[in-house]
Amino acid sequence: MYQQRIENVLKNMEAIGLEQMLVCDPPSIFYLTGRWILPNERLLALYLNKNGNHKLFVNKLFTVDGDIGMEKVWFSDTDPGCQIIAGYTDHTKPLGIDKKMAARFLLELMELGAGSGFKNASECVDAARRIKDEDEKAKMILASQLNDQAMERFRGLIKEGVTELEVAAGMNAIYKELGTQGPSFGPLVSFGANAAIGHHKPDGTVLKPGDCVLFDVGCKKNDYCSDMTRTFFYKSASEKGREVYEVVLKANMAAEAAMKPGMKFCEIDKIARDIITEAGYGPYFTHRLGHCIGIEVHDAGDVSATNQDVVKEGMIFSCEPGIYLPGELGVRIEDLVLMTKDGAQRLNFVSKELDIVQ
Amino acid sequence: MYQQRIENVLKNMEAIGLEQMLVCDPPSIFYLTGRWILPNERLLALYLNKNGNHKLFVNKLFTVDGDIGMEKVWFSDTDPGCQIIAGYTDHTKPLGIDKKMAARFLLELMELGAGSGFKNASECVDAARRIKDEDEKAKMILASQLNDQAMERFRGLIKEGVTELEVAAGMNAIYKELGTQGPSFGPLVSFGANAAIGHHKPDGTVLKPGDCVLFDVGCKKNDYCSDMTRTFFYKSASEKGREVYEVVLKANMAAEAAMKPGMKFCEIDKIARDIITEAGYGPYFTHRLGHCIGIEVHDAGDVSATNQDVVKEGMIFSCEPGIYLPGELGVRIEDLVLMTKDGAQRLNFVSKELDIVQ
Repeated sequence: MYQQRIENVLKNMEAIGLEQMLVCDPPSIFYLTGRWILPNERLLALYLNKNGNHKLFVNKLFTVDGDIGMEKVWFSDTDPGCQIIAGYTDHTKPLGIDKKMAARFLLELMELGAGSGFKNASECVDAARRIKDEDEKAKMILASQLNDQAMERFRGLIKEGVTELEVAAGMNAIYKELGTQGPSFGPLVSFGANAAIGHHKPDGTVLKPGDCVLFDVGCKKNDYCSDMTRTFFYKSASEKGREVYEVVLKANMAAEAAMKPGMKFCEIDKIARDIITEAGYGPYFTHRLGHCIGIEVHDAGDVSATNQDVVKEGMIFSCEPGIYLPGELGVRIEDLVLMTKDGAQRLNFVSKELDIVQ
Repeated sequence: MYQQRIENVLKNMEAIGLEQMLVCDPPSIFYLTGRWILPNERLLALYLNKNGNHKLFVNKLFTVDGDIGMEKVWFSDTDPGCQIIAGYTDHTKPLGIDKKMAARFLLELMELGAGSGFKNASECVDAARRIKDEDEKAKMILASQLNDQAMERFRGLIKEGVTELEVAAGMNAIYKELGTQGPSFGPLVSFGANAAIGHHKPDGTVLKPGDCVLFDVGCKKNDYCSDMTRTFFYKSASEKGREVYEVVLKANMAAEAAMKPGMKFCEIDKIARDIITEAGYGPYFTHRLGHCIGIEVHDAGDVSATNQDVVKEGMIFSCEPGIYLPGELGVRIEDLVLMTKDGAQRLNFVSKELDIVQ
């Protein structure tokens, strides 16, 4: 499996004329080796070469169990890590660089002339990671099944006098009870006008009748992420709230229904955005329609107005239109979808009908 | 206060002939502006220029309240962030780069010719951050006072049948009760032979009589970190355990007693290391003696055999010798110290005498 993934990355490198690259990002190294190594500020690099002579450069402080199909090159804190890497790279050829490599390592590799040139080559790995293999699909489906179960229980946390922080704490406990690895990101819990604030973190806000209740939540299971949003109302929904909800739902469902392999990401974004714009809420849909997801909640790649990339079978991404009326309310509805040859296979099945919790 | 800090960084830049630099690391930006901005994968940069025309480049998704003493240049996800920055930098002069800047931004700034050359200039900021001002000293002292109070209570968690994970959970609760912002790093709780394993994470290991009990713990308060290690024994201590403990304690106290401004960090490391080596345990002291600390648990700079930098008044770092006997036990004793003109002022006062918990 890992060998196949490395082959896919090498194919992507070949397509841009690159024979060697350094992968640094821990999730990408996990993807290619099955090993989590979290080096913090320390150097960690997986060297890929079209000749098959791959190496993992890793600090002795960390543990890398078992055979990973390539040599492990160990070094200590006092060893010159970049020099060791430069001892293996081909100085006469361009060297692909992980987009997340820290400047201090890149600048040193440049001084050492570790390659004839340096190029951000992360897309070679990211493009491979965007297309899930069967093992990954099964894990993504399971993570979303657990997220569905969680959301059904989260609905039960909506009750008089509760604060956003209390709901968020309850969510974390439920994720634990469900046997997940915990949330894939800090749960977003927003009541009323808070739901209109981008990146609002749960605080001491108390739930009031008439509030919208936005839950944007996900969990990790087997190192893969889920992510879903549902917006409820508490006790009642204003006319404006109902109207906004129906527009967002229509945008969500129309985009999901239209998705096909071969479309561009920006075309999918446009379907949802046009519906919201036609309803007069265009300026209040302030973000992209979605993002790719897998080992990370935000895998590289998004469903945005500017992304011309083509959607392919095996991709998994979110479809999450929203309308945010400052000082008033916010509504977002999000599912994950797996792209199949026939279109979008939804990974989330929690009802999207307007739900006024009593 | 922030103006003074920026002046200090500019002085350090001047000393290496640098007129402009980009600071990216959120803790450094917090240090220079008092604002926490956590951009994750997004671009964030504080541009410093000796002419005083500083700018903060920040994505509109984030909030930066109030006057920060410089212009904020906002951009959105679809704006070309690096191009915007390159519109302000002096292309005819070298551009200092934050060591943590992601390669994708650095490679793009290079393509745009944003400077005449690119240099890792983080030491200009790190050197300033290493010398604490009065505001920082007061915060560091308070964080360590709270950590002392916490450690006294952590001792009470040592009891029959308890697991490392249960103790760690208890610690987190105590930090909360004490009004801290929580742990400054995941508490290290190691029983018996686990204490000999570097980077051992608390697991289901059950405490046994005769075990050593290593607690390496810290909390955050007012955004500043504490960090301390104490090693207890449970019910009894073997002769070897007692011997190792006394050697480590002697190394810890000798190094702390000898510290003076003007010494090199490596000289301090040598004092502790020599004592451990003379006792025959040299190969079992497998790490540096200490590290600088402040806004981050590991601020740049360490007390190691290879660090020739000179210790100055106002620096705060750890003194944490250890001896680790694989399969048997591990002992580490750690205080934080503030360097004054008269020598080390300890920030931790929990007893370091051999303590066999009954």
